[in-house]
Amino acid sequence: MAKKLKPKKRSSKTAARLTRPKRTKKTVRRRERAPEPAATAESMAAQQRSISISEFFAKNRHLLGFDNPRKALLTAVKEAVDNSLDACEEARILPDLLVEITALQQDKFTVTVTDNGPGIVRKQIPNIFARLLYGSKFHRLKMSRGQQGIGISAAGMYGLLTTGQPVEIVSRTSSSKKAQLYHVQIDTAKNKPRISVDQECDFELPTGTRVTITLKGKHQKGRQSVDEYIAQTAMANPHAGIVYKSSNGATVEYQRQAKELPPTGRQIRPHPYGVELGLLLRMAHDSRLKQLSAFLRKDFSRVSARLARTICQKAKLSIRLKPSKLTVHQAEALHAAINKTKIMAPATDCIAAIGAERLEEGLKAVVKADFYTATSRSPSVYSGNPFLIEAALAYGIKDGNGGDPEREPVMRLIRIANRAPLLYQQSACAIYRSVVDVNWRNYSVTQNRGSLPNGPMALMVNMASVWVPFTSESKEAIAHYPEIIREIQLAVQDCGRKLGAYLRRKKRVQQEMEKRRYIETYLPYIGEALQDILSLKQHDVILVTSRLQELLEKTRRI
Amino acid sequence: MAKKLKPKKRSSKTAARLTRPKRTKKTVRRRERAPEPAATAESMAAQQRSISISEFFAKNRHLLGFDNPRKALLTAVKEAVDNSLDACEEARILPDLLVEITALQQDKFTVTVTDNGPGIVRKQIPNIFARLLYGSKFHRLKMSRGQQGIGISAAGMYGLLTTGQPVEIVSRTSSSKKAQLYHVQIDTAKNKPRISVDQECDFELPTGTRVTITLKGKHQKGRQSVDEYIAQTAMANPHAGIVYKSSNGATVEYQRQAKELPPTGRQIRPHPYGVELGLLLRMAHDSRLKQLSAFLRKDFSRVSARLARTICQKAKLSIRLKPSKLTVHQAEALHAAINKTKIMAPATDCIAAIGAERLEEGLKAVVKADFYTATSRSPSVYSGNPFLIEAALAYGIKDGNGGDPEREPVMRLIRIANRAPLLYQQSACAIYRSVVDVNWRNYSVTQNRGSLPNGPMALMVNMASVWVPFTSESKEAIAHYPEIIREIQLAVQDCGRKLGAYLRRKKRVQQEMEKRRYIETYLPYIGEALQDILSLKQHDVILVTSRLQELLEKTRRI
Repeated sequence: MAKKLKPKKRSSKTAARLTRPKRTKKTVRRRERAPEPAATAESMAAQQRSISISEFFAKNRHLLGFDNPRKALLTAVKEAVDNSLDACEEARILPDLLVEITALQQDKFTVTVTDNGPGIVRKQIPNIFARLLYGSKFHRLKMSRGQQGIGISAAGMYGLLTTGQPVEIVSRTSSSKKAQLYHVQIDTAKNKPRISVDQECDFELPTGTRVTITLKGKHQKGRQSVDEYIAQTAMANPHAGIVYKSSNGATVEYQRQAKELPPTGRQIRPHPYGVELGLLLRMAHDSRLKQLSAFLRKDFSRVSARLARTICQKAKLSIRLKPSKLTVHQAEALHAAINKTKIMAPATDCIAAIGAERLEEGLKAVVKADFYTATSRSPSVYSGNPFLIEAALAYGIKDGNGGDPEREPVMRLIRIANRAPLLYQQSACAIYRSVVDVNWRNYSVTQNRGSLPNGPMALMVNMASVWVPFTSESKEAIAHYPEIIREIQLAVQDCGRKLGAYLRRKKRVQQEMEKRRYIETYLPYIGEALQDILSLKQHDVILVTSRLQELLEKTRRI
Repeated sequence: MAKKLKPKKRSSKTAARLTRPKRTKKTVRRRERAPEPAATAESMAAQQRSISISEFFAKNRHLLGFDNPRKALLTAVKEAVDNSLDACEEARILPDLLVEITALQQDKFTVTVTDNGPGIVRKQIPNIFARLLYGSKFHRLKMSRGQQGIGISAAGMYGLLTTGQPVEIVSRTSSSKKAQLYHVQIDTAKNKPRISVDQECDFELPTGTRVTITLKGKHQKGRQSVDEYIAQTAMANPHAGIVYKSSNGATVEYQRQAKELPPTGRQIRPHPYGVELGLLLRMAHDSRLKQLSAFLRKDFSRVSARLARTICQKAKLSIRLKPSKLTVHQAEALHAAINKTKIMAPATDCIAAIGAERLEEGLKAVVKADFYTATSRSPSVYSGNPFLIEAALAYGIKDGNGGDPEREPVMRLIRIANRAPLLYQQSACAIYRSVVDVNWRNYSVTQNRGSLPNGPMALMVNMASVWVPFTSESKEAIAHYPEIIREIQLAVQDCGRKLGAYLRRKKRVQQEMEKRRYIETYLPYIGEALQDILSLKQHDVILVTSRLQELLEKTRRI
């Protein structure tokens, strides 16, 4: 394969023309199109090799949310803020965050996020900030913003690729200890951290972490800006205090609205529904338990001893079977039996919902409107993962068309997953799909085919889950699992129905008012006419007209 | 952290009520909401660990295109077909593919793809089919369908997870050898293959590969079906013969349209534009070359010795500087100098375009229409990767509204990347975005805000590149790089302008015809009137009217 690795040097078309001006165009073209030698199975085998996960993501950085400078800045802020909020909540500390963006050059910024969380143990710092697929949140089922152990290391890697600067971390785990300062950068070929600074230093808080990333970016206002992200984050996290120092020198302070931490979701075991055959087989083989019934009871949630026996009976398997000896055939029977058995839905409290009321309040804080409604679905399951959908809707927003009175406004969709707002890839998101697929004409609003409905309204949808399935590692859009789409639609339809009732009532009241105006306008004339025809006295006329009015108003259905 | 790993067993709400019916609702609720113990830096550190890439993708299988059974079946077929076509083309063999889908149960299928490619060397088979991030196409810049070394192993992993069945491979590299049969399955915890069968066997072709995957799926007709995918693949690959045996027993044969293989793209070195600072620094440090000028000349494309000297001069660096000693500061200067220097666009022949004519023919084969046009842009660069956009448009499609005469049809968009059709995630794709953002009203067709234009038309866009940036590992949509969007828009606008000219001409011709009708209708009467007024003879009348007609037709602008 030496030939393939060192392709023949060929002069470019232009250069060829300069040096050999007499050659015909045809010759040049033929030369340029000369094929490389055909590959063989052997030559191809010589090129086969494994790829490090960081090389993969360095080349596919858009998968992580770093496709363009503006989004890169947002993604870096988002990953740092997500980590800080998660750490504070796990340690049951009311979060106080300081987010600073400083412009070094027009397209070069530092992002610094400081939190009052529990801090990070010294030896873990390099791995957490400069190694992809390393973290505490992947191998468990528990609700959190972070999931994959990629985010903050990826932000650091992007910074390194675009500016050559390492990530700087200061972290302090106890008021009785000094803080630790690290400068780390990822070695992409090996997916391992490289440490350039490792020393003690001062830190103004008793515990907490500060991370600083230098990166190429673009700081710009608008719907998908860092400013909007911070505002929506504050809205979805009323228990957090956030100070935001923008690169233009402005400081915005979002004060803590709720003095109590939200309940944390519990860590759970997988629910038997949705666990697929192959996964079941692997879990059985990996289990240390000696009996099938114990395996079902202890490695899954919602399986009692009685239920385990029932399942084994249906599968025609002994409850004493050793899980690690399970064959594919037996696993098939077990899998079929599980799906034929009624098992209680997963525990509610593994998911901490924002709550319909809080969600409505959050929406009220952001948009002024005439009508609000909210709904919270009960938990459901996709692929064995419990999740819950909440939605809040506001109608009659002032200035819903962004100040342009000519344009009919389109619904504004606010998407949230585990308290983290999603700003990009709206149209790829299951929330968008679900909202578009609802027939909004049923609720008295107009809608173009395949679009969001029209009207001065905003819809906020939150998905809370122990594992939110995002369409990419950048966590911008929720994947189209049928179970999730169904739940979102049910929640949205519930809000829609309430909106429809409100709009129809409003219309009826309007028609009513018009009708009343007619009655009030014409009744005196009817009185006069009656007076003429029946020769009534004035006080009889008043009596008759008032009775008529009463009667007419009663007979109308409101 | 023992506490955390074994959460207290808590009875469910319902169960609690059954056993202790007298407890108030409030107590139950409080018990349920009791928080887990707060985490500390130390307890969190104990949970930190690394995640294997296969565990990651097993949990995030939707990233690989396995979100639902229907798409899973398509993705498995697509990955196998992509690999087969790539292998044949690299070995310069005209591809003959046999794609079979067999239903085992209603929701369980086997996918078998057989090719006449060069075969796979025995020891590489397990890694290629049961190890993620393993392949020959990642570490090079060369146009191919596969890129990442994930696809086929992921399909096998999905099959394993859903049915417990291993992947079966038969491959033969020479007519003088027997074929090799393997059954392999991925060990997700380690991302390594596990081999269950490894023996010699017979194979009907002198060289080639057959892969069989058993998986849960759903076989269904329609726009996003396997049938449609095979049809579009045949359209974009006229040099391939494909026989498709559907699960319903039908066999479709797509015969080879072109007897010649398309030119292969050459493997290239990265272009200096778009190589970012961090990457430049890493390339310099990894380079074995001793001098900066040699590094620029040999590790990049399109840099001559003279150009290398100019760049070094601009950066105020010695051409004899050792690349491996480059500091961040020097790299910044070098990076700035590169981007201030005019460097020739990347070589065209690293990308094998389908060609505007072929593209138009392909479109003609699929849709019958009144008007066709096609365009091919010259190559451009994003992040150092050359790419090229081609587009073909058909207008006046018969039955463009899918048989519903009431509905105004919307443009049908056919997206292709390196000859592989993209069927899913249309709205997340840079092609869709670009087409929607073009103002189609300029070209005399209607368009709703934020939607595809209306009209009986189809648009086919192909992106050819040494590295197509997909929005997810499932390769369904192209990422939104500004350079790519711009090129797509230019190509689409070019087609749009030609369409606009055609539609305006058509309209003028129509108006013209109407005008002519008027002239022809009224001219005899004018003749009669003139005859009366001027007392002309009959032959004078004929003369005058024919002259009038001539004159009128001349003065009208067509």
